[in-house]
Amino acid sequence: MSDHGRRRGRGGRRAGDSGTSEAILVAARGQFADHGYYGATIRGIAAVAEVDPALIHHFYGTKEALFSAAMRLPVVPSEVLTAALAPEMRPAEGELGEHLVRTALSVWESGQLKETFVGLLRSAVTNEQAAIMLREFIADSILGTLARLTGLSDLGSRAEAEYRVAMVGTQMIGLALARLVFRFPAVASASVDELAATIGPTIQRYLNGDIAIPDHGPPASGAREPTNLSEL
Amino acid sequence: MSDHGRRRGRGGRRAGDSGTSEAILVAARGQFADHGYYGATIRGIAAVAEVDPALIHHFYGTKEALFSAAMRLPVVPSEVLTAALAPEMRPAEGELGEHLVRTALSVWESGQLKETFVGLLRSAVTNEQAAIMLREFIADSILGTLARLTGLSDLGSRAEAEYRVAMVGTQMIGLALARLVFRFPAVASASVDELAATIGPTIQRYLNGDIAIPDHGPPASGAREPTNLSEL
Repeated sequence: MSDHGRRRGRGGRRAGDSGTSEAILVAARGQFADHGYYGATIRGIAAVAEVDPALIHHFYGTKEALFSAAMRLPVVPSEVLTAALAPEMRPAEGELGEHLVRTALSVWESGQLKETFVGLLRSAVTNEQAAIMLREFIADSILGTLARLTGLSDLGSRAEAEYRVAMVGTQMIGLALARLVFRFPAVASASVDELAATIGPTIQRYLNGDIAIPDHGPPASGAREPTNLSEL
Repeated sequence: MSDHGRRRGRGGRRAGDSGTSEAILVAARGQFADHGYYGATIRGIAAVAEVDPALIHHFYGTKEALFSAAMRLPVVPSEVLTAALAPEMRPAEGELGEHLVRTALSVWESGQLKETFVGLLRSAVTNEQAAIMLREFIADSILGTLARLTGLSDLGSRAEAEYRVAMVGTQMIGLALARLVFRFPAVASASVDELAATIGPTIQRYLNGDIAIPDHGPPASGAREPTNLSEL
């Protein structure tokens, strides 16, 4: 499903590539940690790894895919969301919330995802810089994609789009923590369908229900940063 | 507001008490970490601290207050909830969700709470035992109290009470993480009233809305454990 896996696989068949690929991932982890998700650049990562930026582009395609590979995420979030909301998969508008909860929970079933989630969370509660990096990644790769695919980005009010998807974030982050880390029996033992039925309407309401939107002007970190390598 | 603060203060005026009190807290941290919140006993903590169990009772009153003091929580959750849902404070039934979100957010404004929350979360994502301890404490002190004060405990279906308050937990834990740890701009810059208006209806629906309750029988860790020292 994910680009980064396929490209790493293809690269791995050529002699010397696996060392290069590893050097790129090590450099990426360092640069993302030091400069955040928005601040890190492919050019900077290439310089540290001593490779041509074009090679990183060839291996990973997008900054998001590179980040996902570097952090050992088993999927690239925007790809999962794009597939889940593709015309042939997309449910009726009123069932969007339930569909999104089901999509997220299905991805979380992967053991690798759980391990990565706990690791990222550990770094975020240990280190302020890591918290910023993870916030930026979630904001861009997950919430930004969600805003785009649900049409919230086209509303003309960035504050509204950001508030709505951030509310979705509060529910889904807590669901992940309760199910994967704390394992509350009632949450851990519920099926994907049961949780989707309970929590789906919450997500639906946050996305397009009748809620009051705070009017504080656009938050500072809301700027849309380039995520495709070709823009960098 | 909290018993443990007042009692520690009173104890602190007598010579030698502050050393004893510190020994009790150190012993409590060790026993809670080793045996979980349910498994740790006042008798065991007293043995490690080499004091009479009655002295711990005198200082802290309840196991929950002792845990709160040992973990440096600035409040005892069940006391906050009891005060917030006391007859003179309790809102109309339909505004319960909003009132609860406002109560939680007000407590979180304390800098001490934020530090403690991050510390507890750090231990929970680092150490499986710490995650269990924290889950048990949240289940008992916060969710169990909420079930009792909202009448869910009297429904006759423990599975329903546990599922409903666990759903409340998923939303509130995620809100705490998004506001205090990740600081998503849209969540961090929203006021208490704004967030209460948006998230209150979610809590309301989880507590008494029309949701399907999974029927898996009572989860294993749901047993209600004694929390008052006098029961131990």
